Amino acid sequence: MVTRLKLNNSRLHDRIEALSKIGSTPEGGSRRVALTDADKEGRDLVISWMKESGLQVQIDQIGNIFATLKGNKSGRPIMTGSHIDTVGNGGHLDGCYGVLAGLEVLATYADLKEKPNHDLCVAIFTNEEGVRFQPDMLGSLVYAGGMIVEEAHAIKSTDGKTLHEELIRTGYLGTMKCGSVIPHAFIELHIEQGPVLESKNDFIGVVEGVQGISWTGVTFRGQSNHAGTTPMNLRKDAAYAASRLAVSVREITKEIGEGQVGTVGVITPKPNLINVVPGEVNMTVDLRNIDDEKLRKAEKMLHEHIENICQEEKVVAETEKLVRFEPVQFDKRICDLIAEVTENVGFSYSRLNSGAGHDAQMMARLCPTAMIFVPSKDGVSHNPKEYTSKEYLDMGADILFETITKLDQIEF
Amino acid sequence: MVTRLKLNNSRLHDRIEALSKIGSTPEGGSRRVALTDADKEGRDLVISWMKESGLQVQIDQIGNIFATLKGNKSGRPIMTGSHIDTVGNGGHLDGCYGVLAGLEVLATYADLKEKPNHDLCVAIFTNEEGVRFQPDMLGSLVYAGGMIVEEAHAIKSTDGKTLHEELIRTGYLGTMKCGSVIPHAFIELHIEQGPVLESKNDFIGVVEGVQGISWTGVTFRGQSNHAGTTPMNLRKDAAYAASRLAVSVREITKEIGEGQVGTVGVITPKPNLINVVPGEVNMTVDLRNIDDEKLRKAEKMLHEHIENICQEEKVVAETEKLVRFEPVQFDKRICDLIAEVTENVGFSYSRLNSGAGHDAQMMARLCPTAMIFVPSKDGVSHNPKEYTSKEYLDMGADILFETITKLDQIEF
Repeated sequence: MVTRLKLNNSRLHDRIEALSKIGSTPEGGSRRVALTDADKEGRDLVISWMKESGLQVQIDQIGNIFATLKGNKSGRPIMTGSHIDTVGNGGHLDGCYGVLAGLEVLATYADLKEKPNHDLCVAIFTNEEGVRFQPDMLGSLVYAGGMIVEEAHAIKSTDGKTLHEELIRTGYLGTMKCGSVIPHAFIELHIEQGPVLESKNDFIGVVEGVQGISWTGVTFRGQSNHAGTTPMNLRKDAAYAASRLAVSVREITKEIGEGQVGTVGVITPKPNLINVVPGEVNMTVDLRNIDDEKLRKAEKMLHEHIENICQEEKVVAETEKLVRFEPVQFDKRICDLIAEVTENVGFSYSRLNSGAGHDAQMMARLCPTAMIFVPSKDGVSHNPKEYTSKEYLDMGADILFETITKLDQIEF
Repeated sequence: MVTRLKLNNSRLHDRIEALSKIGSTPEGGSRRVALTDADKEGRDLVISWMKESGLQVQIDQIGNIFATLKGNKSGRPIMTGSHIDTVGNGGHLDGCYGVLAGLEVLATYADLKEKPNHDLCVAIFTNEEGVRFQPDMLGSLVYAGGMIVEEAHAIKSTDGKTLHEELIRTGYLGTMKCGSVIPHAFIELHIEQGPVLESKNDFIGVVEGVQGISWTGVTFRGQSNHAGTTPMNLRKDAAYAASRLAVSVREITKEIGEGQVGTVGVITPKPNLINVVPGEVNMTVDLRNIDDEKLRKAEKMLHEHIENICQEEKVVAETEKLVRFEPVQFDKRICDLIAEVTENVGFSYSRLNSGAGHDAQMMARLCPTAMIFVPSKDGVSHNPKEYTSKEYLDMGADILFETITKLDQIEF
């Protein structure tokens, strides 16, 4: 067994800060949207650090970056990583933390000239945020075989450029074949971007999976009427129907129980006037669960509620399936390993699921995969206010290090 | 007793059509917003008809028009009337029907040289719709002493002109003092602008009063969160709070029972995105009842519901009283008279309250007052699609005629 190495925490924090300065925004956030000049500058900087530690850097056909530290035996690498592209005005940690802490693990081995058994690899995936190119998590999706390279190359940015053009322009169209290296295991360290760990006063989240997502658009059509002259029993009130459905969504989450979330984020009544009974409302329902069977039950209940409301309020409804992603279950053995490592170190932890999407859910198609979360202050992310204390960041990096060290001794 | 006279129905319909052509819109509606050129043209036309019948026309200080047929004895006139201004793209009947049917009653007496006991007067009130000058029902409000003339004259139109300027410009700044003639009784004939009579297959509505109106603006503030990562128990969902309140408004109407209406017309969540728990929602609640005690109870219940929702969802609410009009009760004797007359003629009728405001509610401050409604197809008004069949219009005019004839023989 490798003796416990100590990460260079101050170098990690310095690098997080240095990277955050590229594309810094007036509000103190970072703007490095995928394959823009700022993203290229960020990539160049991180690659310079990778090379400083003597890592072997490869770029694949979709611009993903892989930096490898050779181990004692050839074969599949233990891979970690995340992304360094940001939303329009993002924080300093989303993605970058996972990449730079992963780099720190490899750099620490390199610094101390400790050689792991397996190759160790840290990856930077292209266009995780999906701000400029749709869909999000594109680099890892393509790497894992979820979309062919040519199709991805043809995707147009919001400013009209193809991904292929922008890969060439920024110098990140690589030659390594997507999916050509199948990892031994993949582990992604990330800030939670939610409030669970903070609310439980836990330091570490053992992420057991990523919730499935079901988005439904609902349009209720009733009859627009005068709010004064129309008796209640003659109304076909689309806003009342929508409100009842929003209340029903909450009931669905209660009935299905822990792990089920449901959100009505959009409610748009027409004509939206104080003294007119709304004749039409567009609304959205976002349902998520880690358990696909429960998610399907929630969807079924949603449609039953819509039907009942239509009958009772004499309105009609039109529904549209906007998005449907199946849940991803991470590898139980790796989750148990993270939990064990965390217990050994003496940090409190929770097992939880991710409500947001991550590159790890794509990599889970290729190899045993899991994630580690650290708390997010107030659950805030995609915002300059995104914050996790250095203490928590160090804890997360330590657990990543310990877990990789353990994984290095295991064959699946 | 006067022998039953026959109104000239075809003249009535011709005049409704001729007036509707002034300011006609591409959709087949009329646009004669108060004190615009089109409104002046409409006024001039109706006055020419008044003079055709030898009526004495007076204009008061707020531009209200009074056309009088002298009766056998001096004293207070029996007054009818309504308004001929329209909303931006209104129908042909709202207001105009009451004015022209009233004129038809006087014209019929004049044609047949029948002299009533009381003076008979038909009024056209200024700016009933309140589109260009606020508040609505302004002419009758000022006439009834609810606002002093000078204050009304200073009101600015949406296009920046004072009411005084526009009265002068259109030639309708009269010298007759507002309130100088107190009617013996006032009766307004109007289309229902609601669906009640149609739904009951009744021809005539005996209008016993005008609902009180209570408008409340409510802003719920919670916390904007990620729809995937925020567990249900950690949410402060402003849209859920708003939806619960909209459902509660319906419950309030059920609990208070018949006559209580409640409408949530405006719901505006922020940020109104599919995957974000709304942190703030602006909404409006419109409550109406003919019984002020019940209306006050409904308002109290509304505030109790808001308080409960705030506690349970951990959101805060800010409320603003936007409008509060007390209900108006019309004169029971006149209502009974209308009902009696309608029964005698053999038309089916309902007693009901008006959900919309009318000049009659202002005149009720001065003298015994009531209203007669005829059905509105689908309850539609303030819209080119506003429609009542000629048959129903004739029935309403007949009942107005019969009621005025009866009132002419009564002293209160």
